[in-house]
Amino acid sequence: MADPGHPVKCSPVMVDGVALNGPTVNILDSEDFLQQSMAIILEDAVKKATDVKEKVCEWRPPEELKELLDLELRDEGESESQILQRCRDAIRYSVKTTHPRFFNQLFAGLEPYSLVASCIVEALKPSAYTYEVGPVFTLVEDAVLRKMMELVGWEEGGDGIFNAGGSMSNMYAVNLARYHHCPDIKQLGLSAAPRLVLFTSQECHYSISKAAAFLGIGTKNVYKVPSDESGKMIPSALEELIKKAKSEGAVPFMVNATAGTTVLGAFDPLEEIADICGEHNLWLHVDVTNSVAWNPHKMMMACLQCSAFLVRDKTGLLQRCYSASASYLFQQDKFYDISFDTGDKSIQCGRKPDAFKFWLLWKAVGARQLEQRVDRALAMARYLADEIKKREGFRLLMEPEYANVCFWYIPPSLRHSSSPSAVLLLPLQVAPVIKERMMKVGSMMVGYQPHSDRANFFRMIVISPQAGKADMDFVLDEIHNLGKDL
Amino acid sequence: MADPGHPVKCSPVMVDGVALNGPTVNILDSEDFLQQSMAIILEDAVKKATDVKEKVCEWRPPEELKELLDLELRDEGESESQILQRCRDAIRYSVKTTHPRFFNQLFAGLEPYSLVASCIVEALKPSAYTYEVGPVFTLVEDAVLRKMMELVGWEEGGDGIFNAGGSMSNMYAVNLARYHHCPDIKQLGLSAAPRLVLFTSQECHYSISKAAAFLGIGTKNVYKVPSDESGKMIPSALEELIKKAKSEGAVPFMVNATAGTTVLGAFDPLEEIADICGEHNLWLHVDVTNSVAWNPHKMMMACLQCSAFLVRDKTGLLQRCYSASASYLFQQDKFYDISFDTGDKSIQCGRKPDAFKFWLLWKAVGARQLEQRVDRALAMARYLADEIKKREGFRLLMEPEYANVCFWYIPPSLRHSSSPSAVLLLPLQVAPVIKERMMKVGSMMVGYQPHSDRANFFRMIVISPQAGKADMDFVLDEIHNLGKDL
Repeated sequence: MADPGHPVKCSPVMVDGVALNGPTVNILDSEDFLQQSMAIILEDAVKKATDVKEKVCEWRPPEELKELLDLELRDEGESESQILQRCRDAIRYSVKTTHPRFFNQLFAGLEPYSLVASCIVEALKPSAYTYEVGPVFTLVEDAVLRKMMELVGWEEGGDGIFNAGGSMSNMYAVNLARYHHCPDIKQLGLSAAPRLVLFTSQECHYSISKAAAFLGIGTKNVYKVPSDESGKMIPSALEELIKKAKSEGAVPFMVNATAGTTVLGAFDPLEEIADICGEHNLWLHVDVTNSVAWNPHKMMMACLQCSAFLVRDKTGLLQRCYSASASYLFQQDKFYDISFDTGDKSIQCGRKPDAFKFWLLWKAVGARQLEQRVDRALAMARYLADEIKKREGFRLLMEPEYANVCFWYIPPSLRHSSSPSAVLLLPLQVAPVIKERMMKVGSMMVGYQPHSDRANFFRMIVISPQAGKADMDFVLDEIHNLGKDL
Repeated sequence: MADPGHPVKCSPVMVDGVALNGPTVNILDSEDFLQQSMAIILEDAVKKATDVKEKVCEWRPPEELKELLDLELRDEGESESQILQRCRDAIRYSVKTTHPRFFNQLFAGLEPYSLVASCIVEALKPSAYTYEVGPVFTLVEDAVLRKMMELVGWEEGGDGIFNAGGSMSNMYAVNLARYHHCPDIKQLGLSAAPRLVLFTSQECHYSISKAAAFLGIGTKNVYKVPSDESGKMIPSALEELIKKAKSEGAVPFMVNATAGTTVLGAFDPLEEIADICGEHNLWLHVDVTNSVAWNPHKMMMACLQCSAFLVRDKTGLLQRCYSASASYLFQQDKFYDISFDTGDKSIQCGRKPDAFKFWLLWKAVGARQLEQRVDRALAMARYLADEIKKREGFRLLMEPEYANVCFWYIPPSLRHSSSPSAVLLLPLQVAPVIKERMMKVGSMMVGYQPHSDRANFFRMIVISPQAGKADMDFVLDEIHNLGKDL
């Protein structure tokens, strides 16, 4: 290949026995492979994976799957046709989380625009730390954050950062609240500080405890506020716990409220909690006051992962809290407006431009349709709940407030009582056994779990516009088919 | 569309004014769009982006680029042809980090096998927390971690986790070292603990300070050990600082050693540091003793981000340190071997299966070629250093130990002295002005920065097998062309 950029010279230039002339890897040699792989991805990982007539999963136990995949990494490489087969196998044995009958997680469905944005990002390999390296993506992030803050209701704007998932957003919040409470902790650490306490409901996501452990606050200093039957934090109980912490000599600094709990999909009463926070001067996360963690990879269907942390602060708090001012990235003598070098607000160094996956989708679909999709998912959840109430052998745990529908299935042999306490007598293994059969058949995926004194129940999440009423009916029919002999 | 899975019914089922029949989004409707987008990605983001005859960047200042991109998110969506144009524009104005003449970061080049793996992951939307949801990807991660530990020299194996970047790996290390030192801190926090101190060289990556701030240790409790001229930690200085910390009543718990510093590419003397750690009973990170942070997205060229944290521990330390035991994900009554449910070792909840991007690449290329690529990159760095020494107006900062080549360019008008101190008199703005011109021309990208009392110099990273000797020569010619009038 003789071109003006990479001229071929006759004599090899050798350093330490290595020839340095020309590139040793040329993308053009891989063009066929890339074309064929993309065709496989479109056929198997997109069309077939989302086809309701195909299986959700092709279950194999770990030891068998290990054999099938031939995981070992060897000294010699393999041919392109072998690698293409590996791609087919990896797709075949993967769970199809984009299948219309995957209801197992708080994400579902496939949004083609977001997929294209993801693939652009993968090919371009950008990092969102500086405008220099990621001009398009730092601007896109800025635009998306502004729009999200507008939707949250912060007319005055604020600050924010996309990061590696909702758990990370919650860690950002806890650390920022601590920094806001006492900036000296960034330099001096907690060993000289009083015992700091944060409050969250017993129904909160486990990332709050992980954050407390990781950030040196300690999991015992996460005071879990009791929730009511529907999963909402009880404000009077919060107030009591704050007083208790203070009476112990500890220092409350933050309340984490949850808008859509993981299991029940419950919304904490934000206004009442905000009032209590105002009174006690506490940072409130996930509210209209201080900060919000919002994952567009859930109900907005952006490709995984797409998570934003938003802060209602315009004084540069996020930058002051997180900055380390690395001189090799964040030079102050650059020739452009360095306010777009947002990397120093992050705990990461390299950081994927996840905002782009939301931006392109939003551009294509528009805010109105995004809103309609949410409305439809919530209506679908209510339809499912109503069906559950109508069907014999099904029992709704509670009316859904969000897209989570929690319910028991009671096999005919166990339907000895029509009283509400029947489900409490339900053998623990009913849901796990149905789940096992469901995975082995591969017809659908719905999660299960116990909850305080409630026996294992199904937690079904309804998100994707690729699922319809027929899929709701199918799930209930199929659970009955899989469990009626138990 | 009438199919057995999604039958069409005549009367719409309405809930809250929303029709629920059938899916409202169908992937098949997007097939053309996906085909066309993939063609654009292959043409513009892969072939053109890596073509040495094309520009590395198409520089626009932020305000102008904002206008060009039309970033606003509106209520109504756009047509597919408009979205395709947005894809072309996003690619056009992005920096081509995969271009053979991008030497600006510690990553470079494009590895087609890794790109295909990335796109499979994006389409399948897996999360690596449980075998249930990510059977292929949890097994792949396990296999890759084992192989990496073997290469690190841990015949007995260990534990590990892929995570969202090298900064995160370092945070994992600091927290794990702390947990190992005193497990009670996980529950009780640091407020009751003595002042913990960790040691790292003054040349270490800034993520160590970020970790100390985030984890509640405090940046002042990161004791920076002096490095020698070549950027290596001075062991005797480490020993002195450990004694100093103890005499202050603080508790040393960890040493972070760096194998390839960010700026100079220096390797700390691991064996001597390991001896000191052994003597003082300190956790050593990045060594053959306790833990390692390894980013295959750098020299191994896996797509961004691909970062592993490895621990030489087989007692489940990682799990104990990080677990929160969420009942909705990590049920203990599952029907398969739950040791593959690795999510509770992570600070994230959802987590991308980044190991797959390294695995497929390794399968295709083989360990031997990966090794040859590293050898070649190091030989290329030595060739570049030798050229710099030969050329008038260029001055090498130090002999490269790794793939980082640091050097000054002295414009003819400033070459008044041949003494080594000439570079100290170099006006600060020489490198920034050349960088500005380089970006505006778009011919290549090389970073610059100051370093202690040294004026701004270029830091060029040589990684990609897509770059050859001609590209090294080009960089030096181009810097001279861009800066000779200064």
